[in-house]
Amino acid sequence: MKRGNTIFFGNAPRVRSYAAICGSKEREGVAGRYADIALSDDMYGESTYEKAECKMLSNAVSLAVEKGRLTDGDVDALLSGDLLNQIISASFAARDFQFPYLGLYSACSTMSEGMLLAAALVDGGYARNCVAATGSHFASAERQYRYPLELGCTRPPQSQWTVTGAGACVISADCGRIKLLNATLGRVRDWGVTDVNNMGAAMAPAAADTVMRHFRDTDTLPEDYDAIITGDLGALGSRIFKDLLWEKGFDVANHVDCGEMIYKVVEDEFQGGSGAGCSAVIMNSYVFAKMEAGLYNRVLFAATGALLSTVSSGQGESIPCISHAVELEAGHEG
Amino acid sequence: MKRGNTIFFGNAPRVRSYAAICGSKEREGVAGRYADIALSDDMYGESTYEKAECKMLSNAVSLAVEKGRLTDGDVDALLSGDLLNQIISASFAARDFQFPYLGLYSACSTMSEGMLLAAALVDGGYARNCVAATGSHFASAERQYRYPLELGCTRPPQSQWTVTGAGACVISADCGRIKLLNATLGRVRDWGVTDVNNMGAAMAPAAADTVMRHFRDTDTLPEDYDAIITGDLGALGSRIFKDLLWEKGFDVANHVDCGEMIYKVVEDEFQGGSGAGCSAVIMNSYVFAKMEAGLYNRVLFAATGALLSTVSSGQGESIPCISHAVELEAGHEG
Repeated sequence: MKRGNTIFFGNAPRVRSYAAICGSKEREGVAGRYADIALSDDMYGESTYEKAECKMLSNAVSLAVEKGRLTDGDVDALLSGDLLNQIISASFAARDFQFPYLGLYSACSTMSEGMLLAAALVDGGYARNCVAATGSHFASAERQYRYPLELGCTRPPQSQWTVTGAGACVISADCGRIKLLNATLGRVRDWGVTDVNNMGAAMAPAAADTVMRHFRDTDTLPEDYDAIITGDLGALGSRIFKDLLWEKGFDVANHVDCGEMIYKVVEDEFQGGSGAGCSAVIMNSYVFAKMEAGLYNRVLFAATGALLSTVSSGQGESIPCISHAVELEAGHEG
Repeated sequence: MKRGNTIFFGNAPRVRSYAAICGSKEREGVAGRYADIALSDDMYGESTYEKAECKMLSNAVSLAVEKGRLTDGDVDALLSGDLLNQIISASFAARDFQFPYLGLYSACSTMSEGMLLAAALVDGGYARNCVAATGSHFASAERQYRYPLELGCTRPPQSQWTVTGAGACVISADCGRIKLLNATLGRVRDWGVTDVNNMGAAMAPAAADTVMRHFRDTDTLPEDYDAIITGDLGALGSRIFKDLLWEKGFDVANHVDCGEMIYKVVEDEFQGGSGAGCSAVIMNSYVFAKMEAGLYNRVLFAATGALLSTVSSGQGESIPCISHAVELEAGHEG
């Protein structure tokens, strides 16, 4: 069923299991207490950053499948993507498994895009168990999008820090305490921001657009949710997001941002975390754990993605952004 | 419903309309006679190859929507991706529309991945009209994956020529002569090929794996189809594909490859066409036209994608590949 841009899952697909791996810097914050594995070395025993990123993603998928008491043969598809050119982390991670793979690219909104497509496949009866997963690595993102770490470039105050980490969850027709109720599909929004160091400002309009369409399509208000969680707007982007909603009459006092909460606030990360791994780690550790413990009942998760490339920026383009949202509800074990 | 790795569409979503745009070189071959627009200049009035690629994709989407007698408001989602880093062609094309966008990355199997996900969304009742689209551009692909054209590098005989073109189709719950019956999800296969100029050899095992699983899941044999169409294996890859199936007891005499048929056979293109636009153009012009004319009744379309990047190859990795397949049947206007 659909209304507006929101699709409703009549059979309540569930989060059967979830897993997260985070890096050494993330280990010092909230993710370190909730993630399944918190690395002490971001190389993760590999020879390159890219291979470390791929290994985190692959292991997060394996862990989620295991924690769901499933084997590879029980999984109908992996839906995954990442930030690297041609999403090599996801595609090479998928090589480790015998189940089918659907590659996605939605920058840092990959976690919610994966969850919504997995939920649609499960809800529609096309699959029993699908894994949605994504991740990122600070060092591979820096050298691809900005400058190699070796250059020692300074970072402007509006910048964010790409999270080293990966998260995965199994969306299942069978069991799990957390239900997926519906999902609001994102539209590309571009308000003309060209500062590639200010992703929060670029992405906030996309998040506001999706969240407001969600309220309209589901006949809800901000206060109906225990938490409205955006992906990686960071501190500045979050303020813009709240402001945009306030202008339209919505007071999202219960808004939290994964980028804002993932690090202890120190000067180095400026606006907080970003990257596909940011919301993937926070959702697949802290948030789902809180929901299972009954501390959050109803959650709206709107991951946010900036759809630029170094080529598009080099050619003078502004930054198109997107945000896909999924609504989750904690209930009894299905 | 699903069996094995194949999902079945009980409500027969349909190809409501389709459109294709091809470049100047493609114009000389079969695509030139069937495409809606055949360019005389591959720059398409833009200042960069990337912008030309994006414009082709955007216009193919617009054309398909118009030919389906739809407006933007009737479209529930665009499912698209391309070969450029961070799929900027698709994301920037999506900026031109008011409907939601789901970004995909499956290299040259994007057309079939988009069609299968669009069909699942429509069949499951989550959407009435979804657009699946992809494209590629020879010059943007060359400078991103290989060398800038200005270098004038010679090409080895096993190489293929990236197609300049884009294709789009509207998958609809409402009308259209061509029905989507089912889809077999691809698994990542990697037989250790490291020659980035020999994509056909790298991708053939993935195509063979998917097509054989399709026969098993649907209880069919090659002779049940009027055509078994692969994406862009090229001449050499097609022979390997046929050989792999022959070894397992399947004689796919009715196999054709979009890469093999798109160009007039001259020495310059060696093994034929490749790129996400290759099967997108051929399917959304020649093949769908033949099906609507009653010349093909039952078609299996298995697009093929090589999931490498310049970084993965530079780090010594082999080429993981994938192939998603959709089964199409021509019937009466729904």
